[in-house]
Amino acid sequence: MNELVFVGLGLHDEKGISLKGLEETKTANEVFIELYTSLMLDFSVEKLEKLVEKKIRVVSRRELEEENGEAVLESAEKGKTVLLVPGDPLVATTHVALRLEAKKRGIKTRIVHGASIMSAAVGLSGLHNYKFGKSVTLPFQENFSETPYTVIAKNKEIGLHTLCLLDIDADKKRYMSIQEALTMLLKIEEKRRMGIISGETLAVGIARAGSLNPTVKADFVNKLLGYDFGEPPYSLIFPGELHFIEAEALIAFADAPPIVRRLVK
Amino acid sequence: MNELVFVGLGLHDEKGISLKGLEETKTANEVFIELYTSLMLDFSVEKLEKLVEKKIRVVSRRELEEENGEAVLESAEKGKTVLLVPGDPLVATTHVALRLEAKKRGIKTRIVHGASIMSAAVGLSGLHNYKFGKSVTLPFQENFSETPYTVIAKNKEIGLHTLCLLDIDADKKRYMSIQEALTMLLKIEEKRRMGIISGETLAVGIARAGSLNPTVKADFVNKLLGYDFGEPPYSLIFPGELHFIEAEALIAFADAPPIVRRLVK
Repeated sequence: MNELVFVGLGLHDEKGISLKGLEETKTANEVFIELYTSLMLDFSVEKLEKLVEKKIRVVSRRELEEENGEAVLESAEKGKTVLLVPGDPLVATTHVALRLEAKKRGIKTRIVHGASIMSAAVGLSGLHNYKFGKSVTLPFQENFSETPYTVIAKNKEIGLHTLCLLDIDADKKRYMSIQEALTMLLKIEEKRRMGIISGETLAVGIARAGSLNPTVKADFVNKLLGYDFGEPPYSLIFPGELHFIEAEALIAFADAPPIVRRLVK
Repeated sequence: MNELVFVGLGLHDEKGISLKGLEETKTANEVFIELYTSLMLDFSVEKLEKLVEKKIRVVSRRELEEENGEAVLESAEKGKTVLLVPGDPLVATTHVALRLEAKKRGIKTRIVHGASIMSAAVGLSGLHNYKFGKSVTLPFQENFSETPYTVIAKNKEIGLHTLCLLDIDADKKRYMSIQEALTMLLKIEEKRRMGIISGETLAVGIARAGSLNPTVKADFVNKLLGYDFGEPPYSLIFPGELHFIEAEALIAFADAPPIVRRLVK
């Protein structure tokens, strides 16, 4: 059967894949993987190849985006093809175009979901899921944009938390650090002066979600600027209004200073 | 070691668990499961017991919430204990209190993430993740609230999509249908008259996310009121402003009428 199955790899290592994802991959004619939309720190294609008992071909951003995934689509026109994707597939909007192209060519598509940083960061922080507003990605300096600042500002205005994903460049093994992200936002604050972020703003930094030892640290920005989060990848949450249970959770699980209790509304 | 590991079951059936979730469960002293925060349609404890080669004890909402999870905590004080949770653990805020109580008693806690409806619904719809605002749960009539209407209204005002989770009562095997949800919102519209929802409003209904045959249907509300989504569980998305790729994705993957192209901003 000609079909393209997007299988989520979940987080951090090769064991983030679900049992059904593993089965789908084992029964595929051909298996591709992309590793540029997220960093999975403790992942190797070789380890996964052993688990799925199959050769896996790595496809680059160029192949998937500039060449519209031609190799993947040609394979799917011949038989069942799996594309392995970090996290939960199609949350990275970049693959929607590939799925559309598959549809145009009469290839059936399916999704096997995986754990995503979108829900993992919520669970790790102890903050309430329904209090998160729009999320945003902080781009590297060369793609500088004030949008993240605006998103945080609009969420705060209505009391909501903001999850910020930090940019990565997998080819160059470059991962934006929490310090870089905070510094960039402080610079925008200097210009925009909306009082969104200062040294005294509470934020939560998360490193290595999905690993055995994620770092989750809540503190004021001037403290986080000097905090060692260890290895990547990183994300960052700017809390809006805090419920008292959220404050307790930040103290218990994100080592927040007890003074955050004073921020409870 | 006395620790409590929250393991995500992912979606729909027993094969939504990740390989690391399976390993953690196999090496636990005692294994508990809660099945009241989400419906996993094709799941049975017996099937999962075979996979993990262990007895699994089902804990009720009463045990976890009114009795503060005493049985789970007592087990975790003696040795490694796993609590299996549908979706991605601690996204359902109800378990944050249990994790806090564990911490108080000196029990280490960890999270093994699983696929969540929060990211799965985004991927299935083809809509862009970073355009979703705050999400909301639509409660049954007996817990009636206008909050969901207000959330959708505020998101729309700033062009954002809203993911609505529909209430379930696992004990009574009662699952709010998409029709019930739409009818409730139309009634609130009659009273509030903010022009948020009418028969001509575009919405996306999703049933059985994570299964082999999820139903994903985008159409105007008056059409969705008569649409058969098949078995539960259900969720519902109210799109805000549409990017043209999002409109194409809704047409291709959610069988939206081509006229949605006219809604592109």
